[in-house]
Amino acid sequence: MAIITIVGAGQMGSAMSYPARHNGHQVRLVGTPLDRDIIKRLKEDNYHTNLKRTLPEGIAYYQIEELKHALQGADALVSGVSSFGVDWFLRQALPQVPDGLPVLSVTKGLMVREDGSFQSYPAYYKEQLPGRQLSLNAVGGPCTSYELADLDPTTVCFCGEDMAVLRELKALFSTDFYHISLTRDVLGLECAVAFKNLYALGVSLAIGLSEAREGKEGLEHYNSQAALFGQSVKEMRRLLKLAKVADENLVFGAGDLYVTVFGGRTRRIGTLLGRGLTFDEAKAQLKGVTLESVVIARRTAKALQKMIAAGLTTADQFPLLLHCDQLISQGKTVDIPWKAFEEEY
Amino acid sequence: MAIITIVGAGQMGSAMSYPARHNGHQVRLVGTPLDRDIIKRLKEDNYHTNLKRTLPEGIAYYQIEELKHALQGADALVSGVSSFGVDWFLRQALPQVPDGLPVLSVTKGLMVREDGSFQSYPAYYKEQLPGRQLSLNAVGGPCTSYELADLDPTTVCFCGEDMAVLRELKALFSTDFYHISLTRDVLGLECAVAFKNLYALGVSLAIGLSEAREGKEGLEHYNSQAALFGQSVKEMRRLLKLAKVADENLVFGAGDLYVTVFGGRTRRIGTLLGRGLTFDEAKAQLKGVTLESVVIARRTAKALQKMIAAGLTTADQFPLLLHCDQLISQGKTVDIPWKAFEEEY
Repeated sequence: MAIITIVGAGQMGSAMSYPARHNGHQVRLVGTPLDRDIIKRLKEDNYHTNLKRTLPEGIAYYQIEELKHALQGADALVSGVSSFGVDWFLRQALPQVPDGLPVLSVTKGLMVREDGSFQSYPAYYKEQLPGRQLSLNAVGGPCTSYELADLDPTTVCFCGEDMAVLRELKALFSTDFYHISLTRDVLGLECAVAFKNLYALGVSLAIGLSEAREGKEGLEHYNSQAALFGQSVKEMRRLLKLAKVADENLVFGAGDLYVTVFGGRTRRIGTLLGRGLTFDEAKAQLKGVTLESVVIARRTAKALQKMIAAGLTTADQFPLLLHCDQLISQGKTVDIPWKAFEEEY
Repeated sequence: MAIITIVGAGQMGSAMSYPARHNGHQVRLVGTPLDRDIIKRLKEDNYHTNLKRTLPEGIAYYQIEELKHALQGADALVSGVSSFGVDWFLRQALPQVPDGLPVLSVTKGLMVREDGSFQSYPAYYKEQLPGRQLSLNAVGGPCTSYELADLDPTTVCFCGEDMAVLRELKALFSTDFYHISLTRDVLGLECAVAFKNLYALGVSLAIGLSEAREGKEGLEHYNSQAALFGQSVKEMRRLLKLAKVADENLVFGAGDLYVTVFGGRTRRIGTLLGRGLTFDEAKAQLKGVTLESVVIARRTAKALQKMIAAGLTTADQFPLLLHCDQLISQGKTVDIPWKAFEEEY
């Protein structure tokens, strides 16, 4: 059995212990400086206060000061930080990671370069650490941490430069509830699953809109959700073309969008915006909730604005994205540009 | 204002009266021989017993014997029959329809030719009525009749051979809750929205599966639904390629799949199959419910089997479709082929 070290005891990082332990591997879960209380409690009774579940038996827990110790003899490293932890991981964790050790990042997101082009986190790490021979891989696809912990079957995709390494990682984590495809198209997969953040917010607007129209909360209409879902798929397809990656990554984007619409935080903010609140008002209602998806959504919109300015595409191709950007960055309130969705093919 | 005659007083045909009346058109709703009681009641108090809603004021109702009268001076004809009514519409209604009158069919489905290739209903009508100059158009995209009647905004696509006719039809039905794109790719759109029938059943299996696993009904897990949704999009994309139609129709297929998963009958049968029932057992539980989607699903599977036999594709590209076919045509019980979904790209 292998030794798997997970750095970052957030929800998804911690949930990766389920397939790992299911396969009998030794698991070492290391908290970041932000996870200090989580690790403290886990050491007591295995209960994860954010994931709200008792983790599998047999995990060894470490505070960040013990990282070096937790990495000794490890066969693979899972990076469980969120988008907000990328620079911390780069500066504090990666320098301690040996070259060649397979790293699997669950961080979902994208960077945007000055020229508006997209950069995956693995590519960003590589660029920032020249001279290192790190083995950087990542996970994409529909998978919420809660349901992974509940062993609800799902399909994800691991991406990285070396198919042999990807197969090794797959062998470590593959179970009858965690199904893994593999691709060498890192940017394609990472784009597809990052774009869904903005569109999950877009689809959720329909929930708030129908609540506001009918005057009751919790009522769902699916025509308008499906219309926004279809528009999202249309625009994601165009974004993938602009990012110059393979169209087939849309499959992961669509699945990931589906689960995110039902998944929690992004849905909550989209619903509030759909009811007619401004972004600041919605944020105030969701006090204390970190909105990683909004950061990624803003980056996607920023990249698109740059590409429009550079003449690479036109605004009329992305009415939903640009409306979401007005909501989250310009203080506007919801007014779905339905007419702009109508096209002649 | 125009005169719009609707033939077929089923749910979707009747719901088309909402955008038509919203735009102030004269609407004549004609029942098929199966709609006799529906029309009788509508004549009394405008209440539609299947749609469970009072239709807009000002619609004239006709029994089938009055079809000729209802067609007099009509500017457009909506065909509201289901897949089961296609041959009736062909033999009993179309002979009375003047050449050139724009016909808009809400019937969703596909025919399969002997060689396994797909044929849209408009193409089927045309083939069966040589020498006629009928103007045959159709609607695709996410739209349930209930929510159209509730004016929940949606986006659909009208398809037909003549863009000028499509624009006329759009002008008749376009409202602030019914948004219409247009395409000349009839087979592409009709394929995309027909394929979703089989896959809506496939995605719904996850609902029954998690209920069975957790031992309680009404519990939904979204990881497995999203995994099956992603797999569906993957296979639909491949089916569109096999049908030799434009990949971009996937946008309508994905939106339509989304609404169908939440929409009713197909979801109910998929959930029952997911709980482990055989198709016959599930059908017995849904007594009296017409399962148009199952007919279309069977046709899609039959076409695929023929294309596999002809060496045009391989079974391993369509594991979910073929499993659904085992459930609905071969008496098998659910056993999702998760492993077969794992691929290397």
